[in-house]
Amino acid sequence: MTERLTIYDTTLRDGQQTQGVQFSAAEKRRIAAMLDALGVDYIEGGWPGANPTDSAFFDALPPTRATMTAFGMTRRQGRSAANDDVLAAVLNAGTPAVCLVGKTHDFHVRAALGIELAENVENIAASVAHCVGKDRETLFDAEHFFDGWLSDRGHALDCLHAALQAGARWIVLCDTNGGTMPGRIGDIVAAVIAAGIPGDRLGIHTHDDAGCAVAGSLAAIEAGARQVQGTLNGLGERCGNASLTTLIPTLALKYADRVTTGVPADALTGLTRTSRALDDILNRVPVASRPYVGGSAFAHKAGLHASAVAKNPALYEHVDPAQVGNTRIVPMSNQAGQSNLIARLADMGLAVEKGDPALARILDAVKAREAEGYSYDTAQASFELMARRELGRLPRFFEVKRYRVTIERRKDKRDRMVSLSEAVVVVKIGGTKTLSVSESMDAGGGDRGPVNALAKALAKDLGPYQAHIDDMRLVDFKVRITQGGTEAVTRVIIEHADGEGRRWSTVGVSPNIVDASFEALLDGIQWKLIRDGATPA
Amino acid sequence: MTERLTIYDTTLRDGQQTQGVQFSAAEKRRIAAMLDALGVDYIEGGWPGANPTDSAFFDALPPTRATMTAFGMTRRQGRSAANDDVLAAVLNAGTPAVCLVGKTHDFHVRAALGIELAENVENIAASVAHCVGKDRETLFDAEHFFDGWLSDRGHALDCLHAALQAGARWIVLCDTNGGTMPGRIGDIVAAVIAAGIPGDRLGIHTHDDAGCAVAGSLAAIEAGARQVQGTLNGLGERCGNASLTTLIPTLALKYADRVTTGVPADALTGLTRTSRALDDILNRVPVASRPYVGGSAFAHKAGLHASAVAKNPALYEHVDPAQVGNTRIVPMSNQAGQSNLIARLADMGLAVEKGDPALARILDAVKAREAEGYSYDTAQASFELMARRELGRLPRFFEVKRYRVTIERRKDKRDRMVSLSEAVVVVKIGGTKTLSVSESMDAGGGDRGPVNALAKALAKDLGPYQAHIDDMRLVDFKVRITQGGTEAVTRVIIEHADGEGRRWSTVGVSPNIVDASFEALLDGIQWKLIRDGATPA
Repeated sequence: MTERLTIYDTTLRDGQQTQGVQFSAAEKRRIAAMLDALGVDYIEGGWPGANPTDSAFFDALPPTRATMTAFGMTRRQGRSAANDDVLAAVLNAGTPAVCLVGKTHDFHVRAALGIELAENVENIAASVAHCVGKDRETLFDAEHFFDGWLSDRGHALDCLHAALQAGARWIVLCDTNGGTMPGRIGDIVAAVIAAGIPGDRLGIHTHDDAGCAVAGSLAAIEAGARQVQGTLNGLGERCGNASLTTLIPTLALKYADRVTTGVPADALTGLTRTSRALDDILNRVPVASRPYVGGSAFAHKAGLHASAVAKNPALYEHVDPAQVGNTRIVPMSNQAGQSNLIARLADMGLAVEKGDPALARILDAVKAREAEGYSYDTAQASFELMARRELGRLPRFFEVKRYRVTIERRKDKRDRMVSLSEAVVVVKIGGTKTLSVSESMDAGGGDRGPVNALAKALAKDLGPYQAHIDDMRLVDFKVRITQGGTEAVTRVIIEHADGEGRRWSTVGVSPNIVDASFEALLDGIQWKLIRDGATPA
Repeated sequence: MTERLTIYDTTLRDGQQTQGVQFSAAEKRRIAAMLDALGVDYIEGGWPGANPTDSAFFDALPPTRATMTAFGMTRRQGRSAANDDVLAAVLNAGTPAVCLVGKTHDFHVRAALGIELAENVENIAASVAHCVGKDRETLFDAEHFFDGWLSDRGHALDCLHAALQAGARWIVLCDTNGGTMPGRIGDIVAAVIAAGIPGDRLGIHTHDDAGCAVAGSLAAIEAGARQVQGTLNGLGERCGNASLTTLIPTLALKYADRVTTGVPADALTGLTRTSRALDDILNRVPVASRPYVGGSAFAHKAGLHASAVAKNPALYEHVDPAQVGNTRIVPMSNQAGQSNLIARLADMGLAVEKGDPALARILDAVKAREAEGYSYDTAQASFELMARRELGRLPRFFEVKRYRVTIERRKDKRDRMVSLSEAVVVVKIGGTKTLSVSESMDAGGGDRGPVNALAKALAKDLGPYQAHIDDMRLVDFKVRITQGGTEAVTRVIIEHADGEGRRWSTVGVSPNIVDASFEALLDGIQWKLIRDGATPA
């Protein structure tokens, strides 16, 4: 007999507290769609009124199957709930659910708020009652609950009972500072249930300051809590929140005899893609050692392990990587490495027989290029071009003989600083040399810099290929400094799109950012010409 | 009454199984010295004979206070322990201790080794007895013990008893695949102790495949195990081993009433430095969210948190960052309030009274700039310049009138494609205009592109400020495409350093990547001139 466990995601609120993370409203909408596809039950969208981005997101909420939730805090001392403008902003967001954080640790009530314990309990009760009265499903985040329990158990429990009696659907026990050990979390959750707060009204919210956020959440679930809060990739304040990217597969694959969640098995296979997509939005290098979804999570480096895995993967894998959409990695020279490659090439329409010596050459080339700073994880189009080169199946459409790009910044006639980028590209097609020039301005025209000028010049006159290029556009452009051998190099990844809705990514690497960009641009055009079946001149 | 807990480090062996990690013998010596300074009890140096590096390391072992240990495996089926060359290599390393891994999971005995269970027990007993007979302190790593316990408890226990009776000092229970939940680890360790293996002979070795390696180790310690194995920064096969960087402070600061370790308090304050030094050796960017030692581990971004921390840091910190050699950070962001801002400005040497109208102007400016795509979380130096502008305390050192940068890519005399970047910058200092030119090549010279050329031209002749600029260098350069209003813009963050060991970060935003870089460069120079107390010409 299993019980339903509710998953509450706070990537868009607590996840946004990560140092260096600032989502735009558009990014929030993309992430909300990813969360919805995954099957979480609640999406905490942000704190309406706290900053312009969150307000913009709530002004145009995307439709979600998950319950969209607005975050805020209990009324401030000395105001009625109805007259508290912070609370009003939360309610005005118009979400079906609201989550209010309030103090439950006596030390905080006195040292941070400077009010009496009884006043704190009143503020919680009145704030929850006000939201319930406005027909909102109301959650109460009991801030610093575990520290509060150890300091003044009576007050901590009074806060929970007040929220429950005022109509809160969920009471969420928060280990806000992230310092409580899992065993203690389990014990306290059990004691709270024994004190009259039902487990199916209790949630758990942990932080990873002692590296135990996931284990602390699991301890609470084992003790009876039936809602778990967390974030994708464990984003969040300081060391982050409990990672749903880890908890969701653990619950599905290791706790299925005890609880069920709203995440279906086919959504679970999208987990690795979801995790990488979030890193993409943040322009962060995915953490290779991340449980379940990391690039190394199923990499068998030790010789003993790799040879045993060849006999039976279950010998050295706690779960099947396919269940979470991840891939087993075995040493490049290994037989299994080659069969993976054959499957990948087949996906690109390149049939290669087992044992073809080109396979080993491609694997060697990947190794050599990755050592130089290339990355083919996302840049599948560049990978295909490299494989085609090794297979002798790369058409030669044109050759770039040289280029020059100039960026000039100075005052315009109206005494404003403006920039002008001018690019000249010389291309040889068949026997013919073509010289194209183009410019880009950053002011007035709403246009971009040197990379844009180069792209325009290159696309301007590609002779017989012109029709294929015309509907191409640059969708995204990511730059990272990475290691190429012993030197730092620039890696540029460009995402392209065309009029038929195709999207493809290419990579360029160089010490010079403009050269790296140009390489990725060229790959993008070449891939498009191959896909369109263009004939080399 | 506390018990002594032994810390066993396997950074140099299991840590080396991390994908992409390959220590040199010299690096192993440096890491061994770091571990010794930290106060671990055992250092597992590697597997003598398994690869050239490990053999070289054991050939010239550094002197350590910690017990140096050689790793290997139990004898292979069909050989006597005395005639097993793999075992001989381990003993020939001449270390005071050896650690032998052996199977304890019946599935592995049959599927990976293909031998009978009784033969497996015999191999373990004979191998341990052989090492003990050679006067080595012997540890037995019980591979896949927890899975083995669940599958065939009798065999798993037989293996442990055989090793113990053969004279093993320590029996280490390994969760090799990293999939066992902490609660179950605790239960099984308790059962093993009840079955006659004393806790002070028991160790725990976990992996992080379910994000619970640290919690699993703590559960074993709570159940009575008295040795814990792990690695610095959680390096290791797949998702890594239990991180000693997390376990050591947790044991010292949260388990001091139960256990003592060999790590003294003053060594604990070197933990952050040790963690960063290992990343330095590996040339990896330190993980900001890493518990205790990460750059964000004590960063308070939420406005509520930041204002409370200003009153009393204990309100939002589970331990004092100074205890682990880390630092508190209150980043600037649109979520921060005025009290946070006053504290931040004071840190920069800018005293501002509460209620000063400039405070509201600065917060408005932060909000407006962040909406344009700026980010001040990490770019503290650019934030300071912006605050100084609002406060009327920004000296005017020089003015850039215009610049031009050209990137040209073409064939050189030897028919190789090369790039040359040339930058011209016109600067006005006091009443004098200066024109500087500089170039950068990507081939041959090992130099960079347009940003480097601009930096060189700008730094080339700054007249009276030259002495201040000479020791500046560009440490890191990060680029991302972000949203500025409705348009995509480029955000560049540059980290600068100088000869006095200062590090500071600046930000630039523009649709043009070169302009954005130039803005960040200018901020970097201006901040340096202010810090050096330069006098405006």
